[in-house]
Amino acid sequence: MSRQVGSTKSAVLLSPDNVLDLFHSVDAFLFDCDGVIWKGDKLIDGVPQTLQFLRSKGKKLVFVTNNSRKSRKQYAKKFLSLGITVHEDEIFSSSFAAAMYLKVNNFPPDKKVYVIGEDGILEELKLAGYTGLGGPEDGKKAVELKENKLFEHDKSVGAVVVGLDQYINYYKLQYGTLCIRENPGCLFIATNRDAVGHMTDSQEWPGAGCMVAAVCGTTQKEPIVVGKPSTFMMQFLLQKFQISPSRMCMVGDRLDTDILFGQNAGCRTLLVLSGCTDQSTLEDASNHIQPEYYTSQISDIYKFLGP
Amino acid sequence: MSRQVGSTKSAVLLSPDNVLDLFHSVDAFLFDCDGVIWKGDKLIDGVPQTLQFLRSKGKKLVFVTNNSRKSRKQYAKKFLSLGITVHEDEIFSSSFAAAMYLKVNNFPPDKKVYVIGEDGILEELKLAGYTGLGGPEDGKKAVELKENKLFEHDKSVGAVVVGLDQYINYYKLQYGTLCIRENPGCLFIATNRDAVGHMTDSQEWPGAGCMVAAVCGTTQKEPIVVGKPSTFMMQFLLQKFQISPSRMCMVGDRLDTDILFGQNAGCRTLLVLSGCTDQSTLEDASNHIQPEYYTSQISDIYKFLGP
Repeated sequence: MSRQVGSTKSAVLLSPDNVLDLFHSVDAFLFDCDGVIWKGDKLIDGVPQTLQFLRSKGKKLVFVTNNSRKSRKQYAKKFLSLGITVHEDEIFSSSFAAAMYLKVNNFPPDKKVYVIGEDGILEELKLAGYTGLGGPEDGKKAVELKENKLFEHDKSVGAVVVGLDQYINYYKLQYGTLCIRENPGCLFIATNRDAVGHMTDSQEWPGAGCMVAAVCGTTQKEPIVVGKPSTFMMQFLLQKFQISPSRMCMVGDRLDTDILFGQNAGCRTLLVLSGCTDQSTLEDASNHIQPEYYTSQISDIYKFLGP
Repeated sequence: MSRQVGSTKSAVLLSPDNVLDLFHSVDAFLFDCDGVIWKGDKLIDGVPQTLQFLRSKGKKLVFVTNNSRKSRKQYAKKFLSLGITVHEDEIFSSSFAAAMYLKVNNFPPDKKVYVIGEDGILEELKLAGYTGLGGPEDGKKAVELKENKLFEHDKSVGAVVVGLDQYINYYKLQYGTLCIRENPGCLFIATNRDAVGHMTDSQEWPGAGCMVAAVCGTTQKEPIVVGKPSTFMMQFLLQKFQISPSRMCMVGDRLDTDILFGQNAGCRTLLVLSGCTDQSTLEDASNHIQPEYYTSQISDIYKFLGP
């Protein structure tokens, strides 16, 4: 079977007949997490065996998540709590990407970063040597809409990072907006723009795309996006692992982030239907993103090739 | 001077030489409130005398505000507290427009309306005979992102109304999103999309455009807008006052809502610089909305024509 990266040709159902073609031509599997490895805090069936099988066959595993709520260290702990050992170097979260974006762009360490988001972003900023403000702490703050009352913001904030934030409030929206509008040169960075995410196993919740849109709506500015489908994280991956993109396979549950991310980078692509995309969405005429392969869940790989 | 409605011809500075042309050809003045009548809770200089002067000359006055935080009754009280007598029938707020939109579209009274917004919307819905849910009350609610915990929403919600909401939180964003995504035929109504507003006299704050964008970002749907610059409110005005649009003058501080609203309806237009637009924005090459006239504040009319 010929390679179909970036193709609009219909996705092929993964099967015992074609799985070896993919398997032998790939050295590294890049996995999205929500909807692929887990849903909320619940592991998807057959994941541990599949990951173990792939490692035993010498495949490199990388976990690329747009969810910015945790740092890489916190994700490694989450994997462990679910019975899977993953090293934090194998994890690329959008929280890490935000900190790395500042790093590679020589963001001055004396400038501060305002965060509309959760702990993961603050932790990655700290590890990268930056001072983060805001985050969950500011979720407790209320505004006072009173005469002669000026809402003050820190003039040394040089970047606002916006990610998924279950503590979003008017205080933070005003704070971030003032920094972006009034601090000269202030960067507006979005971890990602996912509309929804499986914050729990039972349903979808507003994703970072919700908070990012809110800030766009008030600042009337567009952000720099560091998560999928932006290729910013891929540049890191390539540098770190020295594998050709054509020998990587991006495995995800989202067409507009995971599959597009893989295709943008020139990777093989496999869509799983265990997350937010179902077969009818994939086959709908309005969908113009076709992965090379699709299957119900990653354990199908193990089912077809395992002992 | 010839009429320039909808024109891209540069705005003309209002002066003692041209003010009579505008004054004599207009029977009704439509005033925006924030940035024209007041800023936050502070009256703009010379407003009472100007309004009194216009009334004494037989001009009809109408107040058209995109701010959905108050109902018409609450706005009448606010005017009174500032020493100006305005009847609630002279006020057209976007909170009222949202309720009227449901009314004229025969929204079933047994369906409920979920509100991401403040008291004004709930009050107007009630006056129109509808049951509103959400609003400031839900600003106190927190979400629980726990396994097997399902976030429930009312299946009888048939419309979600989104306006400016200083109590915005993740609970309300999820509630509104679930209604729009899961309740068949559920309407998504935006009071307006103003990026910012003068919630206080001293600075601008995120406007309804912030909350509306957040809901668009997570639902990936576009709303029905009932406030300016949509002409929905104008249909009401015209029906009520029986004045030709060409004999009305829309007076506002915003190009993309007030002036566009006036032009869309075929009204004369006057921009005041007492709110969120300054002369450099008006004259910037990137601005394609030109009012017929502009002046620093509405009291200039009184200054040029008064005793």
